[in-house]
Amino acid sequence: MAKVLTVTLNPALDLSVETQVLVPGEVNRTGNTRLEPAGKGINVARVLASLGHAVTVTGLLGEANAGPFERLFEVEGLDDQFVRIPGQNRINIKIAENGGRMTDLNGPGFRVPDDVLNRLQDRLAPLLTTCDAVVIAGSLPADLPAPAVASLVRQAADAGKPVWLDASGEGLEAGLKAGPFAVKPNTEELSEWLGTPLTNLASVANAVARLHDSGIANAVVSMGADGVLWSSPRGSLRSRVPPVPVVSTVCAGDTLLAGMLHGVLAGQPDDAVLAFATALSAECVRHIGVGNPEAPDFSSLLQQTRVQAWPVDNKTGEMPL
Amino acid sequence: MAKVLTVTLNPALDLSVETQVLVPGEVNRTGNTRLEPAGKGINVARVLASLGHAVTVTGLLGEANAGPFERLFEVEGLDDQFVRIPGQNRINIKIAENGGRMTDLNGPGFRVPDDVLNRLQDRLAPLLTTCDAVVIAGSLPADLPAPAVASLVRQAADAGKPVWLDASGEGLEAGLKAGPFAVKPNTEELSEWLGTPLTNLASVANAVARLHDSGIANAVVSMGADGVLWSSPRGSLRSRVPPVPVVSTVCAGDTLLAGMLHGVLAGQPDDAVLAFATALSAECVRHIGVGNPEAPDFSSLLQQTRVQAWPVDNKTGEMPL
Repeated sequence: MAKVLTVTLNPALDLSVETQVLVPGEVNRTGNTRLEPAGKGINVARVLASLGHAVTVTGLLGEANAGPFERLFEVEGLDDQFVRIPGQNRINIKIAENGGRMTDLNGPGFRVPDDVLNRLQDRLAPLLTTCDAVVIAGSLPADLPAPAVASLVRQAADAGKPVWLDASGEGLEAGLKAGPFAVKPNTEELSEWLGTPLTNLASVANAVARLHDSGIANAVVSMGADGVLWSSPRGSLRSRVPPVPVVSTVCAGDTLLAGMLHGVLAGQPDDAVLAFATALSAECVRHIGVGNPEAPDFSSLLQQTRVQAWPVDNKTGEMPL
Repeated sequence: MAKVLTVTLNPALDLSVETQVLVPGEVNRTGNTRLEPAGKGINVARVLASLGHAVTVTGLLGEANAGPFERLFEVEGLDDQFVRIPGQNRINIKIAENGGRMTDLNGPGFRVPDDVLNRLQDRLAPLLTTCDAVVIAGSLPADLPAPAVASLVRQAADAGKPVWLDASGEGLEAGLKAGPFAVKPNTEELSEWLGTPLTNLASVANAVARLHDSGIANAVVSMGADGVLWSSPRGSLRSRVPPVPVVSTVCAGDTLLAGMLHGVLAGQPDDAVLAFATALSAECVRHIGVGNPEAPDFSSLLQQTRVQAWPVDNKTGEMPL
């Protein structure tokens, strides 16, 4: 069991509702309704806690609707070290119609106070002395400049802790410059960072090489149904996911990251690490919410997950598996 | 200052969001977002507390999302005596577009356990010994039969406490049979109870007479822009509301009831009671949320509120004011 610290700068309350057909201007009756705290760092923390790790959660939390988060932290046994700031965490409404159409209503978050980065760094300092790894995951509040991510990565790295970064856009770009131990972009995020489309596996390989050139030791690229690529100083592996019915991919990346960190911290062989994380991520997409390692058929999913070394045919861009 | 007990059987979390235009199937950006505990009895309690009364809130509260309610009770100084039951309180989403169109998504609530009425009555018993009045307000959970309202009204009446009932449909019908001290239907609810449309003030007068025939001493009928009628053994009064821009009528009835109860418990003259309650209700509709007696122009609203005896010309159905 390891001690992990996760940082979430822009938590959200996700409200998922189901309805037959959404008719604007009318009173619509809804079925299943779930109001659930979200935010990538918090999702990662939940998975790690379910895998038996001692997890501390920190970041920024709006006071006005902190209740559901605090309740979750209590229920999941997460050590709550969030810095409270005035205002409310953003609320994202996801309306799922029976026919499959999804409508999103994404709200604005809190405004951060001027001294927020200092307060966060003060909070992190003592927590960094006792943890084994740090996860910085998720988006930035609208008015927190991206270099804040770099400051946090650097603070953790300076404390000698491996940082796992899951960010996108400016946050990813800024964070990469501060030398995280691992990054976990999906192909879209990687493509945006590189500024060119990733059309095949060779182009992903090229993008990963660029990450290594930037000093990143571990690149974990989630490619949806095409599986996961993990490139490290020890070589490159690709996993193929077992075929599962996809219900929601919302927490798949967070589950993957948590699964990877779990295996790496336990010192498992690389292929076992990647297989476990990939299978857990496949478990996750079958339902709403994070992946559940206690799912009755998890061992079967794991068995169906293939991991192989990652040779790319530079002529065709294809990877044999 | 009086001690009041309010009973809410079906609390709700109201999520109000603003967006430019709601486009189904797309990601919509929202502006102002408010997640707020609601439920008629809770709204009445908030107004009474702001008027300086000691208010205890009870009823049924779903455990799964009780947090925002508990926070509200703490902030507003309401004594929380809700019976906790498994499941979540219903969530109602109100999407307001800039053009004025409103879309509602109304969720299902908790399922009540079989023994819930007994548990509620056990909870009420000691609370009834110390309060000056009881408010039973709002809708019923889907699977709580309407006679439960009658049982609660009877229990409070047997304890010698005046019951103010604000219910509709089956709840109103059942509750009326148990002899509440006062009821506060709006014209729609009254029309539904009577089974005939109320087309003019004479028909409202007739309906009120039917309420008195049923043994109800006090009938307070809210008629929207047409003001409020209050009929009691001491006679009948009608108030006219001052002209105000209407933003939301959601809490107007709850504010009216609280204002009436405030004046009655203080032993104020009837016309002063009705004028105050009507003005506070007018204050309420100008904004989202319950009426605020501390509004800077409240005394001006009160001054513009007219109260007169209620003679109806039986030939024309018109009431001179």
